Amino acid sequence: MPGPFISFLTDFGSDTAPATCRGVIWSISPDARINDLTHTARSFGVRDAAFLLWSSVPYLPIGVHLAVVDPGVGTRRRAIALQVARGDHLVGPDNGLLLPAADRLGGVIAAHALENPEFWRDAVSHTFHGRDIFAPVAAHLATGVKIDRVGPAVDPAELVSIQFPEAVVDGGLLETSVLFVDAFGNCRLAGQPADLAELRGRLNAGDEFSLRAGEQAITVPWQDTFGAVRAGEALIYEDADYAGLAIAVNQGSAAERFGLTTGQPISIRPA
Amino acid sequence: MPGPFISFLTDFGSDTAPATCRGVIWSISPDARINDLTHTARSFGVRDAAFLLWSSVPYLPIGVHLAVVDPGVGTRRRAIALQVARGDHLVGPDNGLLLPAADRLGGVIAAHALENPEFWRDAVSHTFHGRDIFAPVAAHLATGVKIDRVGPAVDPAELVSIQFPEAVVDGGLLETSVLFVDAFGNCRLAGQPADLAELRGRLNAGDEFSLRAGEQAITVPWQDTFGAVRAGEALIYEDADYAGLAIAVNQGSAAERFGLTTGQPISIRPA
Amino acid sequence: MPGPFISFLTDFGSDTAPATCRGVIWSISPDARINDLTHTARSFGVRDAAFLLWSSVPYLPIGVHLAVVDPGVGTRRRAIALQVARGDHLVGPDNGLLLPAADRLGGVIAAHALENPEFWRDAVSHTFHGRDIFAPVAAHLATGVKIDRVGPAVDPAELVSIQFPEAVVDGGLLETSVLFVDAFGNCRLAGQPADLAELRGRLNAGDEFSLRAGEQAITVPWQDTFGAVRAGEALIYEDADYAGLAIAVNQGSAAERFGLTTGQPISIRPA
Repeated sequence: MPGPFISFLTDFGSDTAPATCRGVIWSISPDARINDLTHTARSFGVRDAAFLLWSSVPYLPIGVHLAVVDPGVGTRRRAIALQVARGDHLVGPDNGLLLPAADRLGGVIAAHALENPEFWRDAVSHTFHGRDIFAPVAAHLATGVKIDRVGPAVDPAELVSIQFPEAVVDGGLLETSVLFVDAFGNCRLAGQPADLAELRGRLNAGDEFSLRAGEQAITVPWQDTFGAVRAGEALIYEDADYAGLAIAVNQGSAAERFGLTTGQPISIRPA
Repeated sequence: MPGPFISFLTDFGSDTAPATCRGVIWSISPDARINDLTHTARSFGVRDAAFLLWSSVPYLPIGVHLAVVDPGVGTRRRAIALQVARGDHLVGPDNGLLLPAADRLGGVIAAHALENPEFWRDAVSHTFHGRDIFAPVAAHLATGVKIDRVGPAVDPAELVSIQFPEAVVDGGLLETSVLFVDAFGNCRLAGQPADLAELRGRLNAGDEFSLRAGEQAITVPWQDTFGAVRAGEALIYEDADYAGLAIAVNQGSAAERFGLTTGQPISIRPA
Repeated sequence: MPGPFISFLTDFGSDTAPATCRGVIWSISPDARINDLTHTARSFGVRDAAFLLWSSVPYLPIGVHLAVVDPGVGTRRRAIALQVARGDHLVGPDNGLLLPAADRLGGVIAAHALENPEFWRDAVSHTFHGRDIFAPVAAHLATGVKIDRVGPAVDPAELVSIQFPEAVVDGGLLETSVLFVDAFGNCRLAGQPADLAELRGRLNAGDEFSLRAGEQAITVPWQDTFGAVRAGEALIYEDADYAGLAIAVNQGSAAERFGLTTGQPISIRPA
């Protein structure tokens, strides 16, 4: 019988901090199967990390999802654990990081503030709650501790939430923006292929669209896959990693080529 | 009794893509022991990744080796699983990536195209076959599914193959080229110490060789180990990671020092 | 019953070398739980790696700690295994890397040179003792092999040791230096908060200190946590990852801002 599943997402980088957290987890839940989602989320980039967690959880076994991107560590921001409809728990700071993933797993059915020191490390630092509070609480939940023991219930409506930007179809245009830039420079946009299809009635491979980003206008084809365009050419497609519209350059970086960063507004119309 | 062994090599980089694949694997084979070989293989560098897989497999337990460097994802390139003489399975695109490792594990004894959707994820994207086809097939093979169930047999002679360049001794020269540059700038050359010994009869620590790379001529000693030369000095040696001749600079980068990249022809003669 | 715990720290970087070592470990100890501390320790930076190991071990389960930063590989430097009072084993080169961590785990109670090839790989290379000697010995110790079987006892007093610089309070000044720069540019200094408190009698959040580093003088507040200063502002604080005094810039890099590198002397007085 395999041990409990714990996913783990932070902006801790390449030093030893993720490993000390895993050490704490294994000290409490020795047979946990730990899946490091990434530890190079953009530093202090709560929205980016929330997006990465949102995009990953559907592919993970039911378990505990530990996420720590926490610019407010040591201040009055709340620490929380959530139980969701699919049966998972999520653990992290109450700064919006967890809520999009919780919604994608069926929504929050219980939220508790991490206030019971029984489930923390004996000594709690001011600056490393990942190791001293979040990791041990996640490990205890993985071993079967009930969520109501980690601290008092919190009204889910009072949790800090973040909104991802949305796409709007209006006047023959799709108004969208860059939601996330991945490590290869592929740019995930707000919206889904259905939004783009709305501009034309239907969407076929090779259909051309004109994108305006700032002063820049570019024309790119809708394609199913990178290999449908030549190396170095751009396309707009449905990104499978991140579940929605995206712009890429086959074997290149769309972010570099077109100077795109998170938040950049883009309007799209049929070319 | 430990779970099945799965090694995992991609060019997916530092984002969450390797983790979502591990999530899919653990959903199917919950006690799999997953060994991430690397996820920073050069993007779309099939030959580099084939070399890394070839150089790693002898040190890995018998199991399933999942490798995805797949510039042709979503096009007509075939997806395959191989069974080899040592007892391992290899899973990945049919673009040459798997064959050198398969040869090193005793050679292909069965090859099958991944055409049976029973072993895929329910929804298959156009651009992330790593998660939707290769990872689940690898996980099913790890749980004991027979290779002939994943799809129809393929004649091994019809698989796409890639050739690593070879070294040739001719006219008192060893004609070789850079096969792989590692993250430290050590340059693995085509050929083995025996090829170099052929130029002199035998090979002793301190023997000097003259290397010509483009316009550049350098003289370096044959040594057993980095520490035999001073920090900052070059040597030619038998690389243990990558099983063959290599040039390095002790505590430095040979690639940077001498401007070497993969494919650069080099001719070597006794100095 | 979970398998034995092995932590693993190297400067091998992002290529496949750590994975081949894990492959060797799992071939010998198939149910080992391996925790990669980091593989991007500064190349050949024995003191940096010794500091990272020292700072990590208190948070790890009792087990085997395998550490390989080994500029002397292939030379006469000794390979060792240590048993410490807490019950752990440490395995690596005898170059000082292991001793600070061993002290932190209660001190060395047995030291043995790795001279018994029974516990090595069959073929030992000149340049990759991590894979061929250290990893297999660590795995054998994890399975319960007694330390006196790996080779002859060594007098612990004869092991190569390294000293971390220390802080000195003298004449109203704290004389310290940069002990380690982490991946975010936070600079761990020699010394503890008690040393700083000695300058003032007691230490309160907001107390200002004047730091002199080379030609540069800066004034920073003592704070408990990053969030107590604005983004972009500096603080001096007790670092929880690395257990001692440190300078940081909230959401920035203190190393870049102030041009600090390991070894830089800094003198501190109340402002």
